[in-house]
Amino acid sequence: MRGVVLHGPGDVRVEDRDDPTIELPTDAIIRLAATCVCGSDLWSYRGVNDIKRPIPMGHEYVGVVEEVGDEVSTVAPGDFVIGSFMASDGTCEICQAGYQSRCVHVKSVGAIGTQAERARIPWADGTLVATPGVPDPDLVPSLLAASDVLGTGWFGADAAAVGPGKTVAVVGDGAVGLLGILAARELGAERIIAMSRHEPRQALAKEFGATDIVVERGDEGVGRIKELTNGYGAHSVIEAVGTQESMMQAIRSTRHGGHVGFVGVSHGVSLPGQDLFYSTVHLHGGPAPVRRYLPDLIDRIWSRKINPGKVFDLTLPLDEAAEGYAAMDERRAIKTLLTV
Amino acid sequence: MRGVVLHGPGDVRVEDRDDPTIELPTDAIIRLAATCVCGSDLWSYRGVNDIKRPIPMGHEYVGVVEEVGDEVSTVAPGDFVIGSFMASDGTCEICQAGYQSRCVHVKSVGAIGTQAERARIPWADGTLVATPGVPDPDLVPSLLAASDVLGTGWFGADAAAVGPGKTVAVVGDGAVGLLGILAARELGAERIIAMSRHEPRQALAKEFGATDIVVERGDEGVGRIKELTNGYGAHSVIEAVGTQESMMQAIRSTRHGGHVGFVGVSHGVSLPGQDLFYSTVHLHGGPAPVRRYLPDLIDRIWSRKINPGKVFDLTLPLDEAAEGYAAMDERRAIKTLLTV
Repeated sequence: MRGVVLHGPGDVRVEDRDDPTIELPTDAIIRLAATCVCGSDLWSYRGVNDIKRPIPMGHEYVGVVEEVGDEVSTVAPGDFVIGSFMASDGTCEICQAGYQSRCVHVKSVGAIGTQAERARIPWADGTLVATPGVPDPDLVPSLLAASDVLGTGWFGADAAAVGPGKTVAVVGDGAVGLLGILAARELGAERIIAMSRHEPRQALAKEFGATDIVVERGDEGVGRIKELTNGYGAHSVIEAVGTQESMMQAIRSTRHGGHVGFVGVSHGVSLPGQDLFYSTVHLHGGPAPVRRYLPDLIDRIWSRKINPGKVFDLTLPLDEAAEGYAAMDERRAIKTLLTV
Repeated sequence: MRGVVLHGPGDVRVEDRDDPTIELPTDAIIRLAATCVCGSDLWSYRGVNDIKRPIPMGHEYVGVVEEVGDEVSTVAPGDFVIGSFMASDGTCEICQAGYQSRCVHVKSVGAIGTQAERARIPWADGTLVATPGVPDPDLVPSLLAASDVLGTGWFGADAAAVGPGKTVAVVGDGAVGLLGILAARELGAERIIAMSRHEPRQALAKEFGATDIVVERGDEGVGRIKELTNGYGAHSVIEAVGTQESMMQAIRSTRHGGHVGFVGVSHGVSLPGQDLFYSTVHLHGGPAPVRRYLPDLIDRIWSRKINPGKVFDLTLPLDEAAEGYAAMDERRAIKTLLTV
């Protein structure tokens, strides 16, 4: 089968890879309907994460089940399925508490690589959710978004305790930040402040529910959030970048007693304990337990209540993955969908 | 009047200080019934916090109102009162949300110094709570504890989302940690693991509700907590020290999706973002909004349901404050009460 392999910084190739096979009785093999490039893939693409050998890429996926192991009972060949980027057994106490991304038997789908024609999904019962039927083609991008960026933005909003009457600020205007805005709107936020200086992203932010745009960053950005909130800061802040600057901007934009939901994969961040102590914020985040939200997200997409697939502003065939990465790296595209 | 002044590391003196006067119409003057030495006072005593000039000490207090400013309406001369170590206006959005310690007009009572015969308490209406009457003398230590260490331990437990069925671990066996144990018991925790290697403190921990004692620290301590919780870690961890080691021990002892309530005043702590990200814990803490809990705490003390005053294992007259500090510094005493 064809699949994307990263050979080094900026070196994306689409190559022949071995077809996946059932390795454990809890596995499923899916044929991808669509896959995509994630903002977090860029950490490797840009050489921030070390690449010691060629690595298969991709962890977002929707597709049709082709084969299942003997112990798989909740999905069957022919089902159209979505799963999280973290495979989870679904039965441990951590999964039962809704933190499937940190399951005691968690397996990273990223290590398998779903930017390919087929993929083996471990822990199929605990990971995959079948849609009510074969989706209309126009729903596929939104269902694909649920696999990571929507689920991650949703977790960011949930972790930030977004709810009715709340003022929410969102740091980061990538796909996750934009879908954090959509999540905040769906969860009833009263006011949603998008921090973005890119006009096409501002437009999508507004379409997803942003009521205010703040173009300033750092101290000035924090100052603007304070100005917009009678000096208090936002109740809820979603952090969707993962850098030192963005984390501190998020914490400092939050009012005392407020909540920061941080979902940008942390890179080189070191939080000063004293600042955190006196901020008195709630801090919660990490790899999103997307599986917790999938049934609800599928419902909202299936009923066409939300259209998160709009974050895909570039669609390319799998074989042109290199251009999909480059476009995102250069911020020419928010997110690239790869047709398979 | 007589009052404690710290002149430099280890240099505690009891001196004549000016009697306080009403400075603002929202002030009250109280005559102290008792005051005490706080674990956080030791940061200055040990020279960890810089001392640039002689500073009046003390921020915990119970006593009788002697005089109030023109705008004070909720307490009156003759009332026996308790207040938080942070004075708060009680009316801003932050106070209304229960984060009085970070009130937009907050004033530190520590800057005033309550290890003295009298003290001026700012924002009397938003800060002081009157007891139902003059307390029996044996209740005074417990009411005094409510002013900081009990309120802080309680906030630690609340911030760690302690509740029925939860396994709680407590890092730190000072007065705050010990009263965090008491709070966890009152809030219905199923199992309470005290991390302590000091026998007298272990005994008090058990009396307050600890079901298990862990003497190991660092990696070994984390390992023991994991062993006691089927490998998962505790649901809730109260951090009551404030060092890098204790914070990391607390975070790493918490299960994924669990809660850390950190109330040890942070000193030299720097949290690695990546560890925090993958820990997926909830982190909340800071200077405790003691005022939020005071009415409830006074009720529990008045009805003799709890006896937090047991943390005072040394009682001295105000004039012997220096020995009170030394005994705590050398861990000969858990907490020193100063009679006035």
